[in-house]
Amino acid sequence: MSNILVVGSLAYDDVQTPAEHRTNVLGGAASYFAIAARLYAPVRLVGVIGDDFREEDVERLRSRGIDLAGLERRSGGSFRWLGRYDYAMNTAETINTDLGVFADWQPRVPDSFADSEFVFLANIDPEIQLATLRRVRAPKAVALDTMNYWIDHKRDALLEVISHVDIVSVNESEARQLCDTVSVAKAARDILARGPRAVVVKRGEYGSVLFTRSFSFWSPAFPFDEVTDPTGAGDSFAGGFLGHLAATGTVDDRALRRATLHGTVCASFAVERFSVDGIEAATPDDVATRYRLLQDLVKV
Amino acid sequence: MSNILVVGSLAYDDVQTPAEHRTNVLGGAASYFAIAARLYAPVRLVGVIGDDFREEDVERLRSRGIDLAGLERRSGGSFRWLGRYDYAMNTAETINTDLGVFADWQPRVPDSFADSEFVFLANIDPEIQLATLRRVRAPKAVALDTMNYWIDHKRDALLEVISHVDIVSVNESEARQLCDTVSVAKAARDILARGPRAVVVKRGEYGSVLFTRSFSFWSPAFPFDEVTDPTGAGDSFAGGFLGHLAATGTVDDRALRRATLHGTVCASFAVERFSVDGIEAATPDDVATRYRLLQDLVKV
Repeated sequence: MSNILVVGSLAYDDVQTPAEHRTNVLGGAASYFAIAARLYAPVRLVGVIGDDFREEDVERLRSRGIDLAGLERRSGGSFRWLGRYDYAMNTAETINTDLGVFADWQPRVPDSFADSEFVFLANIDPEIQLATLRRVRAPKAVALDTMNYWIDHKRDALLEVISHVDIVSVNESEARQLCDTVSVAKAARDILARGPRAVVVKRGEYGSVLFTRSFSFWSPAFPFDEVTDPTGAGDSFAGGFLGHLAATGTVDDRALRRATLHGTVCASFAVERFSVDGIEAATPDDVATRYRLLQDLVKV
Repeated sequence: MSNILVVGSLAYDDVQTPAEHRTNVLGGAASYFAIAARLYAPVRLVGVIGDDFREEDVERLRSRGIDLAGLERRSGGSFRWLGRYDYAMNTAETINTDLGVFADWQPRVPDSFADSEFVFLANIDPEIQLATLRRVRAPKAVALDTMNYWIDHKRDALLEVISHVDIVSVNESEARQLCDTVSVAKAARDILARGPRAVVVKRGEYGSVLFTRSFSFWSPAFPFDEVTDPTGAGDSFAGGFLGHLAATGTVDDRALRRATLHGTVCASFAVERFSVDGIEAATPDDVATRYRLLQDLVKV
């Protein structure tokens, strides 16, 4: 079994859905990712929190065995995100973002993390993603997530870091925006041409598609009637995806296919409850049950 | 092998896509359905055409062995549809509809068709769907398609005919509209509660989902970079779906799953070219090749 390094945000979220409004709940890409990936393999976290970050939330991560040697507490406020979902529960509308201590943060990767085998560069400034990646000696596979803001504002830096990673995880609209095409298949080929060996395009309730140079793989979404809170679905997906790769220690075609289903499973836990509560409550048995259910959905 | 009866429109379409504009091309639900279903089993057609309907288009259907004993030619214009697709090529915007001889048509089902085994009630007035169905003695399975217009204007009649059919084929927005819910799974359960044993929800580039009381089945869409003309995709889907059921003569769970993949395959031919040209050019070998490709897309 290999280990996994994640660099990304820890945050407090205010989330409004048509049904409910939750304030000040644990969020952030690194939180969701780490808790999901820890279902599969040892996880090391590099992140930053402010004075206001609750010690009990640090403990939630530590108690799961997540290595927090890369967690810095700095003077100032924690990253805060205020988002709203409409009735269709598809994409979040960001009402406010307060970066706090995250604004001018330069991640420090502890020496003890330099031998990390799998790396997830969560959605942060692509220049910081690249700087972080350079602190890891010889990773077996590196995955990257991003968002429309970086595509708009730091496109060249983003394309540069993409050329250094193995797996790009984006949602459908980001893929289209990054490659300026309505065709997701064309967008995926464009990204693959820049170096990565795999692109995972996440499509919410429509599931996800894995693209490589030699094959594509479709995963259905977990068949919910309704979701409670879509926040963190993408990062939990990445956690299940890289988690499975780290658990097997390989990145071959079969591992990538199965990783896509594990990503879907972890995303399904995340969206069932607010904050990290859903993915936190999931057990390896729950993972296995949902993995089988996904396979049954496509079995003829 | 069983036979299939289809009742529905034959039309001339004007179709505008971002790339091209075609006028006066053969269209109509019954045309697409019959040509697709004929790849699998004998097909009988009940429809109406006007003075302007080209004999060569009648011959295109007849030459494939489609039984046209139920085709009436009446004085007046044929059904004409003018539609436009935007860049995303998802849903058609109807610019104009001219019903012509279709407006006050009451389908006459020839006596020789009364023993039909599989029946497709294409998108027409639900009162006409029900009247037609009553002319068939003991069908093994009846499938129905509809559209937003009938959901809005003849809801009660539509719900009545739905209670008499085995399979309901709708697209995602129609399912939501019919059952007044954003959840497609809830909509499907609502439809199943009215009597049908299967509901197929078509989702364009996201594939389709088959719902029954005991299981669900996801089909990916055929992985095109781009489609040429989405017109007729749903009717070609229905043709492949019922075609497979008729070819096997059964409506068990496995046949329904496989029928969903065959529907996807036939839709993929339809959208590759304008008018019925794509589905007309497809061979059983092409069907088998694409069926395998769909299965490969979900194989772990």
